[in-house]
Amino acid sequence: MDNFIFTNTTKLVFGRGTEEQTGEMIRQYSDCRKILLVYGSERIKRDGLFERVAASVRAQGMEITELGGVKPNPRLSLVYKGIELCRREGISFILAVGGASAIDTAKAIGVGVPYEGDVWDFFLNKATPQTTLPTAAVCTIPAAGSESSLSAVITNEEGGLKKSINLDLIRPVFSILNPELTYSLPPYQIGCGVVDMLTHVMERYFTNTAEVDVTDRLCEALMKSIIVNGVKTYQNPTDYAARAEIFWAGAVAHNGSLNVGREQDWASHRIGIELSGKYDLAHGASLSIVFPAWMRYVYRHDIDRFVQFAVRVWDVDIAFAKKEEIVEEAIRRMCAFFRQLGMPITLAEAGIPTDGFEEMADKATFGDTIPVGHFVPIGRQAMIEIYKLCAGNRSLG
Amino acid sequence: MDNFIFTNTTKLVFGRGTEEQTGEMIRQYSDCRKILLVYGSERIKRDGLFERVAASVRAQGMEITELGGVKPNPRLSLVYKGIELCRREGISFILAVGGASAIDTAKAIGVGVPYEGDVWDFFLNKATPQTTLPTAAVCTIPAAGSESSLSAVITNEEGGLKKSINLDLIRPVFSILNPELTYSLPPYQIGCGVVDMLTHVMERYFTNTAEVDVTDRLCEALMKSIIVNGVKTYQNPTDYAARAEIFWAGAVAHNGSLNVGREQDWASHRIGIELSGKYDLAHGASLSIVFPAWMRYVYRHDIDRFVQFAVRVWDVDIAFAKKEEIVEEAIRRMCAFFRQLGMPITLAEAGIPTDGFEEMADKATFGDTIPVGHFVPIGRQAMIEIYKLCAGNRSLG
Repeated sequence: MDNFIFTNTTKLVFGRGTEEQTGEMIRQYSDCRKILLVYGSERIKRDGLFERVAASVRAQGMEITELGGVKPNPRLSLVYKGIELCRREGISFILAVGGASAIDTAKAIGVGVPYEGDVWDFFLNKATPQTTLPTAAVCTIPAAGSESSLSAVITNEEGGLKKSINLDLIRPVFSILNPELTYSLPPYQIGCGVVDMLTHVMERYFTNTAEVDVTDRLCEALMKSIIVNGVKTYQNPTDYAARAEIFWAGAVAHNGSLNVGREQDWASHRIGIELSGKYDLAHGASLSIVFPAWMRYVYRHDIDRFVQFAVRVWDVDIAFAKKEEIVEEAIRRMCAFFRQLGMPITLAEAGIPTDGFEEMADKATFGDTIPVGHFVPIGRQAMIEIYKLCAGNRSLG
Repeated sequence: MDNFIFTNTTKLVFGRGTEEQTGEMIRQYSDCRKILLVYGSERIKRDGLFERVAASVRAQGMEITELGGVKPNPRLSLVYKGIELCRREGISFILAVGGASAIDTAKAIGVGVPYEGDVWDFFLNKATPQTTLPTAAVCTIPAAGSESSLSAVITNEEGGLKKSINLDLIRPVFSILNPELTYSLPPYQIGCGVVDMLTHVMERYFTNTAEVDVTDRLCEALMKSIIVNGVKTYQNPTDYAARAEIFWAGAVAHNGSLNVGREQDWASHRIGIELSGKYDLAHGASLSIVFPAWMRYVYRHDIDRFVQFAVRVWDVDIAFAKKEEIVEEAIRRMCAFFRQLGMPITLAEAGIPTDGFEEMADKATFGDTIPVGHFVPIGRQAMIEIYKLCAGNRSLG
């Protein structure tokens, strides 16, 4: 186990009807008179969520200024607009209602308001935020990840630069997680979310750090629960119990507790991001295609870790066959799970051609100068091989 | 799953040599010039720990005022002395070096200094702390529990009243956990600590709350790791890897993350506390005697939960025998584990007579008016039956 520092200061308020506590929660952290409410979709107005949240805020004597129109890959221009609004209106608390895009926008506005320079300086590492307006979130998507994280990712439309800031200062002071708020999400989005949270655990699980038994077992436990409850919640969106397990699993998967003292990988996320960027493929769908291929490419690097994964997570019998076949069986079971979630496992199933591999591999590795991932560093040629393997993934049955 | 709020703001700094970061860490939270250093045993002076911590504090330009002599079941009189010292010397940060007793003392001093009344008011629920001096800890015992908790337990010598305060305000701002600092603990204390952390998980695990799959599995994962690494670290105190797993397992067991959304039990702790109080028995040793007996008394209340515990934690085959025998087998394996840790499993082994059951049961249940525990509420007569069962615990082999 490596030395580490673990901290996560965000208070999580979980369960049915908890959005009605929003106003009281803000009051615990701030004596503000005015808040900025950041959101994306108009869906939250149609389905009554906006009004429930707003009523609880107004009940505490606070005024709401709205900033709608957040888009996926949230934009710097909207962050500027939010900063200007906060300054003009004397706003001192920012509430996001939505998924990661709304929360990241809120975080960026938070550090931008008290800063005299350009908030983009922080994303270019030209300056470090010293203070922030407090932020909080009402989450409408499981596995947003941003609800208690120290990260915000913003895209600068000029040049299409996507950059992040990462520091404890920007964690939301609280986040409200009501599984019922996700009942109306389309099944495809749920499938993507379940794949995403499983891979958040796997990126932490495949490590070169020796002797990490506690976190290994916690990762395995969470993966098993995601597998069981992921299928249930995909098949029956209004099963509260299953949706609650998945919502909480998504939060635990990404709150930093499962990667303490261990190197993480993250190659598959990087390889998938290129697919998403070039072919407009959903993040979760890129991962259900890339992860099996990545596994087949790297498992010989530490086959015993993959056997452990096969036996403990996918219930493959340790005496099933020789090690390679045990691992292959686990990958096939994982692919079958992805299929049960309506996810693609091959490029062809996602309608993606096979002629873009070199371009994507060049881009991700900066022309083969910086490999991606840590379990096995993946250079340009290795990435091309993994994209080729993506064409041939097989599942059970 | 029940609705819940989860928060834990303490920053944990884990690993070899981390006590040398103490000064820098304090500086992150405070511009104090003077700190109070609270400790118990003189062992920390003999083995050099005190000087390493002090050097890192002085390197940040801070002065140290010492408050030694903390005893197990820490005393109110020492808290008063600490409050007076802080006020007289203008101290604005409190560092505990030790186990739960030192940390609880620091927490009580922290809330006492800015309060105009008597700090004991807080423990009698006559007043609620509104503010505190920041506190932090360098831990010398695994499973102290107090290192990130919201609790402090103090004993008022006048009348022997032992009372607690519980609020987020008093969590340490950071805690330093270096497994190496525990190498010199006697084996008996390690055995007690391992039993204690396993039971911290079990008190959370045995619940009447339905549909708590994520936390069930996380509990099971942690118990398995405690079982594997507990024996290793007992047998070889300087095996860093095993000691690190146990140290981290102890922190996770008690940081509040494993009981979210579920009712907890805690009858066995309450039943054991009477044994400890009356016969001066170590906390861990009381639990290795009481828990098997409690299990035998209550398992029929929800035998399927105990079968799950047997199969997933103790690897009893689901087709081993009928349910009662599966559970009995798990309890016997647990007792064998306690024995491997040098712990008693019967009252006789701890030299405890059988004539005090009624007195202890009367005291714990306030004359049969308030039962203990939640999984099955245990009244006076039930508690006497459990003490009787403690006489007859059996292990494997």
